[in-house]
Amino acid sequence: MKLAISASLNYRLGDPVDLMLQIEAAALPDQRVIRASLDVGRPEHFARQPAQDGIGERVWLRAGGMLHARYSALVEVDRPAVDVRTLPAVPLHRLPADAVAYLNESRYCPSNKFHAFVDRRFGDGEGGEKIARMRDWIESRFTYVAGTSTAETGALDSFVERRGVCRDYAHVLIALARAAHIPARMASAYAPDVSPQDFHAVAEVFLDGGWHPLDATGMSRGSEIARICVGRDAADVSFLTAYRDIGFVDQTVKVERVKGIEPSS
Amino acid sequence: MKLAISASLNYRLGDPVDLMLQIEAAALPDQRVIRASLDVGRPEHFARQPAQDGIGERVWLRAGGMLHARYSALVEVDRPAVDVRTLPAVPLHRLPADAVAYLNESRYCPSNKFHAFVDRRFGDGEGGEKIARMRDWIESRFTYVAGTSTAETGALDSFVERRGVCRDYAHVLIALARAAHIPARMASAYAPDVSPQDFHAVAEVFLDGGWHPLDATGMSRGSEIARICVGRDAADVSFLTAYRDIGFVDQTVKVERVKGIEPSS
Amino acid sequence: MKLAISASLNYRLGDPVDLMLQIEAAALPDQRVIRASLDVGRPEHFARQPAQDGIGERVWLRAGGMLHARYSALVEVDRPAVDVRTLPAVPLHRLPADAVAYLNESRYCPSNKFHAFVDRRFGDGEGGEKIARMRDWIESRFTYVAGTSTAETGALDSFVERRGVCRDYAHVLIALARAAHIPARMASAYAPDVSPQDFHAVAEVFLDGGWHPLDATGMSRGSEIARICVGRDAADVSFLTAYRDIGFVDQTVKVERVKGIEPSS
Amino acid sequence: MKLAISASLNYRLGDPVDLMLQIEAAALPDQRVIRASLDVGRPEHFARQPAQDGIGERVWLRAGGMLHARYSALVEVDRPAVDVRTLPAVPLHRLPADAVAYLNESRYCPSNKFHAFVDRRFGDGEGGEKIARMRDWIESRFTYVAGTSTAETGALDSFVERRGVCRDYAHVLIALARAAHIPARMASAYAPDVSPQDFHAVAEVFLDGGWHPLDATGMSRGSEIARICVGRDAADVSFLTAYRDIGFVDQTVKVERVKGIEPSS
Repeated sequence: MKLAISASLNYRLGDPVDLMLQIEAAALPDQRVIRASLDVGRPEHFARQPAQDGIGERVWLRAGGMLHARYSALVEVDRPAVDVRTLPAVPLHRLPADAVAYLNESRYCPSNKFHAFVDRRFGDGEGGEKIARMRDWIESRFTYVAGTSTAETGALDSFVERRGVCRDYAHVLIALARAAHIPARMASAYAPDVSPQDFHAVAEVFLDGGWHPLDATGMSRGSEIARICVGRDAADVSFLTAYRDIGFVDQTVKVERVKGIEPSS
Repeated sequence: MKLAISASLNYRLGDPVDLMLQIEAAALPDQRVIRASLDVGRPEHFARQPAQDGIGERVWLRAGGMLHARYSALVEVDRPAVDVRTLPAVPLHRLPADAVAYLNESRYCPSNKFHAFVDRRFGDGEGGEKIARMRDWIESRFTYVAGTSTAETGALDSFVERRGVCRDYAHVLIALARAAHIPARMASAYAPDVSPQDFHAVAEVFLDGGWHPLDATGMSRGSEIARICVGRDAADVSFLTAYRDIGFVDQTVKVERVKGIEPSS
Repeated sequence: MKLAISASLNYRLGDPVDLMLQIEAAALPDQRVIRASLDVGRPEHFARQPAQDGIGERVWLRAGGMLHARYSALVEVDRPAVDVRTLPAVPLHRLPADAVAYLNESRYCPSNKFHAFVDRRFGDGEGGEKIARMRDWIESRFTYVAGTSTAETGALDSFVERRGVCRDYAHVLIALARAAHIPARMASAYAPDVSPQDFHAVAEVFLDGGWHPLDATGMSRGSEIARICVGRDAADVSFLTAYRDIGFVDQTVKVERVKGIEPSS
Repeated sequence: MKLAISASLNYRLGDPVDLMLQIEAAALPDQRVIRASLDVGRPEHFARQPAQDGIGERVWLRAGGMLHARYSALVEVDRPAVDVRTLPAVPLHRLPADAVAYLNESRYCPSNKFHAFVDRRFGDGEGGEKIARMRDWIESRFTYVAGTSTAETGALDSFVERRGVCRDYAHVLIALARAAHIPARMASAYAPDVSPQDFHAVAEVFLDGGWHPLDATGMSRGSEIARICVGRDAADVSFLTAYRDIGFVDQTVKVERVKGIEPSS
């Protein structure tokens, strides 16, 4: 499946400020970047580096005045649709070293608080079957309400308030998975069918030796998203980090399935 | 300088449970492990893997009944005493990729909350000089009070309460450093002169291209500690993580400077 | 029903300190204090005043050295066992002025967070029937675990952690009731059958024109408790408030049903 | 001094909903309501009751469709300008019973967290002199930034973030005063010179036998405000409480000093 992606960010910067952008679809075995362009105007400097876990890249800028960032890409996603219920958990002592940090509590996912709930509500399940039930539980009990969460809202708040946006759904699923001792992280992504169209975020769980995206909002399928980057929670996968206050002007994201033959040039 | 280290942990496990131990001094260029032994009895399984950032190792166990873990080591620390005040900060876009995650807020260090305080109180400083003033500020205003913090206590609480133990001092310094856009992480360590003797924790800041330990309690010097492992905050560097409730029995830590010639055999 | 009550508190005070005691069973129409004695030694000063909502009394002391407080009482509780399910809620605009503050969020009961959960889980109920289902829901899903909560633990934590002691059970019930726009407060009380014996705390809800105690732990019945005082949450009904740090030595509470004829002298 | 006050609130209600308004200047010995009118259209029902501590009144409405509430009043404030520095604290055991609840921690003012800071920073002061230094400390260190706080923001957040709006300044001053064992509450008020004009909130402290308003933002003087109502913190003094979600349309507040002679008819 191919996705045509475009994103536009306009911010008022004023004096020169350091910025970190994470808005490009990552080049990965299961998502091929056919073509991509990023235009950020003429910053004072511009640097790239691998993002967390080597998935995707961070772009560092220093710029003043206005930021007009334009990104467009054509990405072929070739990720099989996996029924997560069939995937076994990996015994803790056989987890790869890199996955272990994703068992720990993080800023927005204080997973240790959820042990009793997870034991009682999902205690009789195993591996992917348990994860799938957690995801379904969240989707059926939560209400997607734009504008209800802030930069302070964590999984504890969302669990109690039973509402939020994609990041909040993902935080709760991550917290529940970790409370069941299954590594879980957050992926930012481009996904079609997300309404309203925006940068999207999903949980990823480590099962059967690999990472599997899972969307608790039900708006996207893991086999149809183009991941940007990953991290412990929203603190790591921000699409734009400014190292001083800046002013939002506007921002658009568009993701469409491309049908038919891709033009050759 | 050589440190003779011993640690003993006794816990009641009951049914077999997965455990992760992080109690061994790491083998690093600036701390040579002359000899070491770890005895954890006869667990069902035992596995080693690199710990976070490749510093030190995690030991995974599965064991039941009682855990009697004994560790002893002789470690030569050869880390120059650095005056952190002389070290420049690394411009954000030149930070190594691995250091960038340590700019982000974490479970116990919600650094974004501290921007205004850091700007106003330490805004006129630069790099290591600013960090040194933060450290001194904490040491002079906080009171070390054993038993005042719990697994819930984060830098926000400690900043307001002005008291805590080594982890709390480290959390506040880490949060302040990150709020000044300087990467900071937590290191667990063995240190002489810590009273009462126990596993110790210090902050590490990334300045002048490298990581530098800094103890806001004033109880240890960076040139005299043997690091065990590192992470974003206390959530990552726990010396013993049990993946189910277990019972504490007792625990001792002993760290002594070794004087004179080391016996050759 | 008569309750023989005794309580003993021993604390190390050091230099003279102000203390507020709330440990005496209140004299109320539905609980008659047949006899009572309070011995607090020889404080520097001693004053009584009505406690919150005019229920019970606060005792102010200023004392140094050791505090040995002894309270004993015989209290006849004559409160009918009410089936809370039969009680209608009072329309908001007909609530007495004093009850309205108990609709608001308080330190340990941030009730506004629970609206969505209450609407979805208990939205189809009314008045006392809804309250009874909330109580049953808590009792069936929570585990009573001594020592798991601290002075920081609020209803949000307990709701997620699904465990706690009597204060935590009461906080969650209060938060849920307020989220359904039914006034709820906390009562401290002496109750038989509480195990281990200690000062007890229950929720009280305002239904059908009056306040009705309700114990989410299931350990006591509203018709069998002797109330000490009431307030918004644990912050108001502490049995001993010291206006400086003091040292706990020991404390005992004993509450027994008195059978047979009360001796005449 | 006379204040001409007008306020206009427009909200989208939809289906009939219960509302509580607290927007009328209270009739008090030190503020005389010369004339006042409140127009709330034609609600299904309308009821008045005394507000907290008997200061001001709550108006209960049930209404649907649109809420157009208009309030206008002429209020003569006759409150002497008091130099709070000259006022002694009241010994704890001599506090009136009603003031004692204002020593306790509340939803937005978890005062017990601030003991160490208050002891160290303001420990050498007494009574009103200490309170005045706390107020000055807040004004000099905090930045007034509209839109930075939400319904979740408490004194702990504001203390660390060093910024906020009037409610946040008041919360911090209340928390610090209580941590020094001086009763403190929040008053909502109309005040001239507040920019932008809006409902205002100040702290009130209990000194020398009475309550004294104190504005940590420095925008108003206690002798020039018309109080609406009082409570433990923002949870109690909301000008409009809707017992279901409603939609904000717009809202204006205007407060002017009236000069010259008041017309006699």
